[in-house]
Amino acid sequence: MTAAADRIAALLDGIAFDDAGLVPAIAQQHDTGEVLMMAWMNREAVAETVATGRVCYWSRSRRSLWRKGESSGQVQHLVELLVDCDGDTLLLRVDQTGVACHTGRRSCFFRALREDGLETVAEVLVPPERLYRG
Amino acid sequence: MTAAADRIAALLDGIAFDDAGLVPAIAQQHDTGEVLMMAWMNREAVAETVATGRVCYWSRSRRSLWRKGESSGQVQHLVELLVDCDGDTLLLRVDQTGVACHTGRRSCFFRALREDGLETVAEVLVPPERLYRG
Repeated sequence: MTAAADRIAALLDGIAFDDAGLVPAIAQQHDTGEVLMMAWMNREAVAETVATGRVCYWSRSRRSLWRKGESSGQVQHLVELLVDCDGDTLLLRVDQTGVACHTGRRSCFFRALREDGLETVAEVLVPPERLYRG
Repeated sequence: MTAAADRIAALLDGIAFDDAGLVPAIAQQHDTGEVLMMAWMNREAVAETVATGRVCYWSRSRRSLWRKGESSGQVQHLVELLVDCDGDTLLLRVDQTGVACHTGRRSCFFRALREDGLETVAEVLVPPERLYRG
C-alpha cells in the first residue's frame, strides 16, 4: 500500500464503528467553533473524506454515500479530523462553504430551548429552493 | 402538569429518539466553543438535565443514568440546549468544571489525524487517578 493508504487504513483500524458499520461525525467550523451538524460515516465515507479533503458522509435514509454539497454546492473542506477517547465519535473541523443545513441556515442546531419551548434562533441565509433547484 | 413539566414534555415530543430510545448529545463549552464530548441521552436523562441544569447522560455500557461528574466532580452545567433540524441530535452548550474526558484531558477529542497517523494533541490536566479515587 502507499503511505496515504496505510495512513487511512490505520485510522480506520482506530475507529470503533457501531453494529451498523457507522460512526457519528460532528462537523465544526474550524475558525469560529460553531457546531454545524452531526451525521454518520461508514468506512468508505471516512476514507474518501481523508483522501479527498472534501467531507463525505453516509446517508442512512438514502443508504448511499453523501458527498456533502454535491447537489447544493455547500461543501465542507476538511481542516482537521479528530477521534475521541473511545474511538466511537469523530470531530471534523471543517471550512463550510455557505450553509450546512438543508433549511438554509448556517447550522442545523437552530432551535434552542427557551422558557416557552423550542424557539428558532438562527435565520435562513439561503432560501432552500436556491439550494436544491432543478 | 406544571409549566416546567409541560415545557419538558413538549421538548421530549420534539426529539426523535432512535430505536433504542436514545439521542446523541454533543457537549460544547459555551464560551470557548470547544467540543468536549459526545454521549447519549434517553428521555429521562433529557428531562433531568433540563429540570436540574446539571447534565445527565445515559450510559450505554452501564445501562443507567450517568450524572456527569457524579464520581469525578467534573460536572457540566447546562447553559443552553439546542435541537437540530431533524430532531435527532442535541447540542448542549455547557459550562464544564475541570475536564470532560476520563483520561483527564479537557476534551475527549484529543487525537488528531496527522501525516503519520493519529497523534495526541492535548495534555492531561488532571491525572485520572485523582478523578476516580476511592
